[in-house]
Amino acid sequence: MSLLVIGTVAYDAIETPFGKTDKIVGGAASFISLAASYYYPNIHLVSVIGDDYDQNFLKLLQSKGVNLSGLQIKQGEKSFFWKGKYHIDMNSRDTLDTQLNVLSNFDPIVPEAAKNAEFVMLGNLMPSLQMKVLNQLSHRPKLVMMDTMNFWMETAMDDLLKVMKEVDILTINDEEARILAKTPSLRKAATQILKMGPKILIIKKGEHGALLFYKDEVFFAPALPLEEVFDPTGAGDSFAGGMIGYLARTNDLSFENLKRAIIVGSAMASFTVEKFGTEALQHLTPIQIHNRIQEFVKLSSFEMKWLPDSETVNSR
Amino acid sequence: MSLLVIGTVAYDAIETPFGKTDKIVGGAASFISLAASYYYPNIHLVSVIGDDYDQNFLKLLQSKGVNLSGLQIKQGEKSFFWKGKYHIDMNSRDTLDTQLNVLSNFDPIVPEAAKNAEFVMLGNLMPSLQMKVLNQLSHRPKLVMMDTMNFWMETAMDDLLKVMKEVDILTINDEEARILAKTPSLRKAATQILKMGPKILIIKKGEHGALLFYKDEVFFAPALPLEEVFDPTGAGDSFAGGMIGYLARTNDLSFENLKRAIIVGSAMASFTVEKFGTEALQHLTPIQIHNRIQEFVKLSSFEMKWLPDSETVNSR
Repeated sequence: MSLLVIGTVAYDAIETPFGKTDKIVGGAASFISLAASYYYPNIHLVSVIGDDYDQNFLKLLQSKGVNLSGLQIKQGEKSFFWKGKYHIDMNSRDTLDTQLNVLSNFDPIVPEAAKNAEFVMLGNLMPSLQMKVLNQLSHRPKLVMMDTMNFWMETAMDDLLKVMKEVDILTINDEEARILAKTPSLRKAATQILKMGPKILIIKKGEHGALLFYKDEVFFAPALPLEEVFDPTGAGDSFAGGMIGYLARTNDLSFENLKRAIIVGSAMASFTVEKFGTEALQHLTPIQIHNRIQEFVKLSSFEMKWLPDSETVNSR
Repeated sequence: MSLLVIGTVAYDAIETPFGKTDKIVGGAASFISLAASYYYPNIHLVSVIGDDYDQNFLKLLQSKGVNLSGLQIKQGEKSFFWKGKYHIDMNSRDTLDTQLNVLSNFDPIVPEAAKNAEFVMLGNLMPSLQMKVLNQLSHRPKLVMMDTMNFWMETAMDDLLKVMKEVDILTINDEEARILAKTPSLRKAATQILKMGPKILIIKKGEHGALLFYKDEVFFAPALPLEEVFDPTGAGDSFAGGMIGYLARTNDLSFENLKRAIIVGSAMASFTVEKFGTEALQHLTPIQIHNRIQEFVKLSSFEMKWLPDSETVNSR
């Protein structure tokens, strides 16, 4: 059994109100793989880079149980590069530069050893490439999770809708949910989107937490109020990675376990935003993760005891 | 023992993307008293109206255990009137008209029977008037809770800071917390504001829930994702009313009980926004409130079971 991750492995240059970086390693698949590796260190990564990519980072990924046989290295070409600047509120950002480079003609190839993957994470990427990966699998995985973004809703909606029909979990942010369902109410949007294919919808609200919709059930995972949000890049990918890593490790897709998985994802995202890029995710210890999850438990635990009709109801 | 509420009793005219009203009853003290009455129907209301005010609404308040001996009725004068229009996202609004009327020379007088109130809710009002109420009390109440807004931070900061020193709980929204503490981080803002007087800070984030800060503890109460937010007017007041009503009824100021109180407040606010003005709060049944609170319990309950260091930790 293995976990297959597809997405970008990229260079980022990031500017925030707190500082700026030169080219640093990034990309959806990097964050996803790193976050997932703390729970499930048996990952196949499918992506593409140029011959300019940081060898030390690749070695780090391998040391964490990420198999790179599906990572294409294009000689004489450059890796995908993104440069962005966050506004003072950290909730919005401007893209300053995008160089597709190797990504412009990326043809994902799933290695033989990963074709029977039971858990598949389709990181944010052109929907037709996400579909290409699904089409190479030898059988229907136990769980397919998909991340996407508004850009594909504007430029490749038909392809996006096709992939959505094939996935179990879709993760998008609140703005994207409203665009996709054409309604301002997230509750109504969720009902609509769950008719488009995914059995489970996760709406990410950044610093405001995340909502999990499954049938008529809804669960809310808070975001940890942090002293400082340093760099939000990769938060959503870390969230998805932590979530699918936990699901793969526990091999349990019940609603109760999905709730736990979304808390784990939120915890991984909370680490990511505390430092630039993948820095925080590179060297976590189990006890750090444990303690962070306990903070989430404390943050949202209460025991409802007393109600106006004088009954004592111990609801938790 | 009684609960003393000060704040406006007003007429509102509201326009939302879903409809508009003529003059309807509103005002902070109306929402607070109604919400609190479901838990603690022994309330003294201190406010002022003109002789134009809706007698049926006053009777309704009385029927719910709200004593109006502190409600001044100014003959020949008009009640405070506010007219506002919500934007399509319901998160922002424009004030179209404000007529202070009786409010312009309001001198709050606490009735003898309420001077020994154990629980005091200072609804959003000019800080000097909030202070005047506190100064009339015969002894320090068990709990003083205060709501305020950015307008007073701009026009009466010195008075506001004086009242803040006298209160136990301060409720403000996230924008106001950032203004008051001059930092974008809510966690840092909370630390700052807790040094200004209040022992407990509640940061209201509207559709994104509310944060409770107490010493080094933080608790997050989610907002219920509703099918439709119809009219947000009075949501914050209903929240405060539900909260202090629950605290007065349970007479328990422990952190665990504060958490329950903030969930009750969130439940009352969730009713308010589903209809225009005070409509939803006028005729709730205990079972409706009970069921709504259960929705909050379901929304945020999870049991963390499995962690990366292979321990089984049951954290709930």
